[in-house]
Amino acid sequence: MSRISVWGFRWAPDFAQGLVRDLRVRWALIEAGRSYEVQLIGFEERTAAPYRQRQPFGMVPAFEADGLQLFESGAIVHHIASDCAALMPADASARAEVLTWMFAALNTVEPPIQNLLETDLLYGNEPWAAMRRPVVVDAVKARLGVLAGHLQGRDHLLGSFTAADILMTTTLRLARHAELVAGFPVLDAYVKRCEARPAFRAALAEQMADYARNTPIAA
Amino acid sequence: MSRISVWGFRWAPDFAQGLVRDLRVRWALIEAGRSYEVQLIGFEERTAAPYRQRQPFGMVPAFEADGLQLFESGAIVHHIASDCAALMPADASARAEVLTWMFAALNTVEPPIQNLLETDLLYGNEPWAAMRRPVVVDAVKARLGVLAGHLQGRDHLLGSFTAADILMTTTLRLARHAELVAGFPVLDAYVKRCEARPAFRAALAEQMADYARNTPIAA
Repeated sequence: MSRISVWGFRWAPDFAQGLVRDLRVRWALIEAGRSYEVQLIGFEERTAAPYRQRQPFGMVPAFEADGLQLFESGAIVHHIASDCAALMPADASARAEVLTWMFAALNTVEPPIQNLLETDLLYGNEPWAAMRRPVVVDAVKARLGVLAGHLQGRDHLLGSFTAADILMTTTLRLARHAELVAGFPVLDAYVKRCEARPAFRAALAEQMADYARNTPIAA
Repeated sequence: MSRISVWGFRWAPDFAQGLVRDLRVRWALIEAGRSYEVQLIGFEERTAAPYRQRQPFGMVPAFEADGLQLFESGAIVHHIASDCAALMPADASARAEVLTWMFAALNTVEPPIQNLLETDLLYGNEPWAAMRRPVVVDAVKARLGVLAGHLQGRDHLLGSFTAADILMTTTLRLARHAELVAGFPVLDAYVKRCEARPAFRAALAEQMADYARNTPIAA
């Protein structure tokens, strides 16, 4: 991968800052020691034809390297990790285990957390939101409890830090507004351990600097 | 992979029959020409310690081949496809594109559809379910509209049938109760095209035969 571009938003509202999913890709690239350019788009450009050709669903991130265009943060992080022993071992069985935990993050843990985030932050004023919330919170807690059990006595999801920890940490961050992770000391320590990595801190600082630079005057 | 085991449920209620996610793994294995054994568990065994060691979240499927234990249908299907040119090309860039659409199925299309399924079939009697339903339906339709646009003029998500079509077809089937897919003729034809494959028909027939054989007397 010689020339790498990552697409993210020019700016995001406060509740979303630090959660937008190009953070995952920036983090993986910095862990892998790859340089890259960030292409920032406005929220209104998401659904315009040029960007839709990169990302049909109109979301970020999108990714391009040497003519290969990808989307979906899970697939992009996997692609970066495929060339980086520090993010994914070379052995095929070990790679399958990393991908298991990558899908666990995005298909098992993220959906209930995303539901909570939407219930509280997007639909918080809808009359059904408060009525539904206990079911949503229970679903999140059930998944967090299992995850805490798995991480008991471990520093990372697998034997060492991998691409799966990038996806799981950023998934758990999506629940920050509800402070549910703090109720599981093992998870709280896990997130803090991963967030303490220099590559995470650099990726987050970069994303926040982009937003600060592009804050609308009205915001 | 010499000896392969797949874990599924012994029985499922009508609304879930044909949707339980070990179907994805059976389908991939049959496409790949692999023989396998199915290990059926009761719903109550999901959360018991022996099964939790295979699948910490207590869901199906789980998978074992030559000592390698995996879970998450996306990761298992990817692992099977890794050794099978008919499900995933050998070229690294083409593989990244397949994985992009695998994550699109499970992280972008499935969560809203799963929300609809839960709203209608698990929480249908809750007072908030009907109030929330329009938002959920709109979210599903938005994703289905994009997917229909992508599939316009194509038989499959990529140039030929791949593992991504297994995940996308089985994801779209999760919305069958609401008949939303039928509103997008391109998607309806796509699902029928994939469901017409002999491997899908064999996998579904197997799963349904297991349920028929193990129907509780009270059901």
